[in-house]
Amino acid sequence: MQRNLTMMTDYYELTMGNGYFAKKLGNETAVFDMFYRPNLEHSFCIVAGIEQLVEYITNLHFEQDDIDFLRKTKEMSEEFLTYLADFKFTGNVYAVEEGAIVFPFEPIVIVEAPIIEAQIVESALLNIVNFQTLIATKSQRVCRAANGSGVLEFGLRRAQGPDAAIYGARAAVIGGCVSTSNTICAQMFDLVPKGTHAHSWVMTFEDEIDSFRAYADLYPNNCLLLVDTYDTLRSGVPNAIKVFDEMKSRGLHPVGIRLDSGDLAYLSKKARTMLDNAGHADTKIFASGDLDEYVISSLISQGAKIDIYGVGTKLITSNDTPSLGGVYKMSAVYKDGKYIPKMKISDNPIKMTNPCKKTFYRLIDKATGKAIADLITLYDEVIDTSKPLVITSPTERWKKLTLDNFDAIPMMTRIIDNGKLIVDLPTVKQIKSKVQDNLNMFWEEYTRNVRPEYYKVDLSDALYDIKQELINQHIRGQE
Amino acid sequence: MQRNLTMMTDYYELTMGNGYFAKKLGNETAVFDMFYRPNLEHSFCIVAGIEQLVEYITNLHFEQDDIDFLRKTKEMSEEFLTYLADFKFTGNVYAVEEGAIVFPFEPIVIVEAPIIEAQIVESALLNIVNFQTLIATKSQRVCRAANGSGVLEFGLRRAQGPDAAIYGARAAVIGGCVSTSNTICAQMFDLVPKGTHAHSWVMTFEDEIDSFRAYADLYPNNCLLLVDTYDTLRSGVPNAIKVFDEMKSRGLHPVGIRLDSGDLAYLSKKARTMLDNAGHADTKIFASGDLDEYVISSLISQGAKIDIYGVGTKLITSNDTPSLGGVYKMSAVYKDGKYIPKMKISDNPIKMTNPCKKTFYRLIDKATGKAIADLITLYDEVIDTSKPLVITSPTERWKKLTLDNFDAIPMMTRIIDNGKLIVDLPTVKQIKSKVQDNLNMFWEEYTRNVRPEYYKVDLSDALYDIKQELINQHIRGQE
Repeated sequence: MQRNLTMMTDYYELTMGNGYFAKKLGNETAVFDMFYRPNLEHSFCIVAGIEQLVEYITNLHFEQDDIDFLRKTKEMSEEFLTYLADFKFTGNVYAVEEGAIVFPFEPIVIVEAPIIEAQIVESALLNIVNFQTLIATKSQRVCRAANGSGVLEFGLRRAQGPDAAIYGARAAVIGGCVSTSNTICAQMFDLVPKGTHAHSWVMTFEDEIDSFRAYADLYPNNCLLLVDTYDTLRSGVPNAIKVFDEMKSRGLHPVGIRLDSGDLAYLSKKARTMLDNAGHADTKIFASGDLDEYVISSLISQGAKIDIYGVGTKLITSNDTPSLGGVYKMSAVYKDGKYIPKMKISDNPIKMTNPCKKTFYRLIDKATGKAIADLITLYDEVIDTSKPLVITSPTERWKKLTLDNFDAIPMMTRIIDNGKLIVDLPTVKQIKSKVQDNLNMFWEEYTRNVRPEYYKVDLSDALYDIKQELINQHIRGQE
Repeated sequence: MQRNLTMMTDYYELTMGNGYFAKKLGNETAVFDMFYRPNLEHSFCIVAGIEQLVEYITNLHFEQDDIDFLRKTKEMSEEFLTYLADFKFTGNVYAVEEGAIVFPFEPIVIVEAPIIEAQIVESALLNIVNFQTLIATKSQRVCRAANGSGVLEFGLRRAQGPDAAIYGARAAVIGGCVSTSNTICAQMFDLVPKGTHAHSWVMTFEDEIDSFRAYADLYPNNCLLLVDTYDTLRSGVPNAIKVFDEMKSRGLHPVGIRLDSGDLAYLSKKARTMLDNAGHADTKIFASGDLDEYVISSLISQGAKIDIYGVGTKLITSNDTPSLGGVYKMSAVYKDGKYIPKMKISDNPIKMTNPCKKTFYRLIDKATGKAIADLITLYDEVIDTSKPLVITSPTERWKKLTLDNFDAIPMMTRIIDNGKLIVDLPTVKQIKSKVQDNLNMFWEEYTRNVRPEYYKVDLSDALYDIKQELINQHIRGQE
């Protein structure tokens, strides 16, 4: 399944590459940051996709066919094509761990490489990390709404293509889903695939109850019956109860029923009563059908009796916000033995970037173990936790906070060094469990789904000063 | 790039398959229709993805690893696993042509195959056709808004994973985009990749004008300059004009400028005036930055001077409707030499399916060459165009229309016969050109972006009667 996605790059990365090569700038090391800008729906994100990013970067190479295709555009020099034929990634990549919680403007991935390499990886890096981070984040929201009930990922048929189905399901599990219905995703990432049966199973048999009996017979230990093919309360649930009665008389334990249409609050309460009255209080009710975090919260607030949610379309596409606006911006170039900070100036302060090779720290209150704020710093800045630290809002400089009993957790790690992976990547299960640990480090006020409290992400004084100096230089240049 | 996606199926397709196999129902032929239900944003869709569906179906097979994985679930019999080891698709597939215009409830793809096969292909079939159809349709809307100006697909970095970027760009070109920035998509589908340069190119040089001169020097025949890195009107456009002056003095023809931020209506008008006054009326203005059909229409209505639109995120994700709700429903089973119609009954009329193996026709007024209505019929029904035809609304039976001078174009073709592809598939360029022909067959009232007129899609009397009889049988069964 290892695909070569080297050519999956915006064409301008290659024309710029050809340009840097021609202008003898190709070996200049540049530093690029991937981060996202604030956006109403996402106060924080759960990072995912780093494993696939590593696969992509460490597998970068152009095939002869690729070179031939590029030659046909008549825009690349033969020297550059020769360079591409031997191309591989030789730089460094720094990233937060998969499953990390990040906030706007914090670097998620930093690439430090000869500028041609750093540019060629831009499009795929953004594609991979934007999408999986989007879905892991959405999944976390859906699972939070489910409030302890399980959530299964069912979105394969509505995902935006095969990769979206496969890697979206991976990200959904990282974000908190119990598992996925997508068999290939389960196979690739060591999960247990989940599912029941479809309406077509019921329709293939003469009667609904025959189809239920057949299913119970085949899956005595995993008998979950879909009850809405004809009429949920008049046919589906009564037939399921008959079959459950038969199973119990043979000492078997039916799992429950699945509702897939109609009003899930009403039907689940009615079905729960019917099942309980028939002596099947130990069965569970699964529900699916156009669910998301908002519908689930609303169902729960109306007392719906749902034990497991199957969530498809709106999770796998992140329906209400189907893209994460992650960007990849140059923050420094390395020249004559030192880093020269770079930033994009804009009339719109939100589009200003943070210059310099950076990292960031999560500051933890030792008394509570909870996160207080994050601090973006220069890469080699040292935080002395033995002394009080004053952090200052990057936009409202009068807002200050003094920390004294705190830890500073470094959030970024060098994962690729001179083109080689130098860390062990965690499994999906490990990442999923890490997400829960990470969430527990935050007061719930910061993580709730609707209008969470603003979490402080500040710049160190050293970084702030360099940024101001670059802005001042720009203003002077315009005068 | 041929991937084996056989395991990309919802797990319940396999547990049901195991069930059909155990119950000796696996060889019963079933007919399933893929279609979509009405949805406010899409009156019609442009079908795309049939080529990838064919690749998927004709390549279906389980590897030993897949069998081993399924064995681990302990839910499949050894006999079924042996069957899967030799599994291939042996049925028939009927489909509309890629690039066809379809309306709600019309079959887009029909699968007629032993039920296990027909079920296993469900998830991937929906995944592939739903997504590409969604994007081709969105692209058509964006291109319609651009009103003759070119649209380039720029969405790679925000697409939902690699396949979404690659096949989304393919679908975007089918829907009307001139081309894509995605190099691998251009390579795979014989397109010319497009692009200019990024802000980082400008930031790599000491001054903006140096970066422009370097670019003009490298790409004298394709010199398109991004002018918003520092200040569009005070720095970018004046520097571009200087470089264009220099190019023209050497007999070269600069292409133009690209705007990527700020108010595109205001900036494009100002920039157009500056370019014209400097003697560069022959240069073009490209614009990009969070565009979709609504923004483009609005820019045009304010007199924006934009010649080419680069459209990314909102096209490649179909931002406002990020999924097409295509479904795959059983319509018949073949038993003892004849088709037995099947339908899903629902309290909600919109969720009722149409029974029977079907096809559909586009009825064309011979006097105008324009489409009047579509008629969904039984598969083997013959439409006699020599006699007047009365069509009747399937929901409001008093609405009738008599056609007399008309042609009936069959819309579905058998493309896979007993597992073998039996037609030549068109290239992307051919499909793209077909889309324009297809659109021309409709009065514009049916195809406008906002609140188009309702286009009639009726059921033949024979099909209508069978459907009513099944509904009546169901009602009698409940009494």
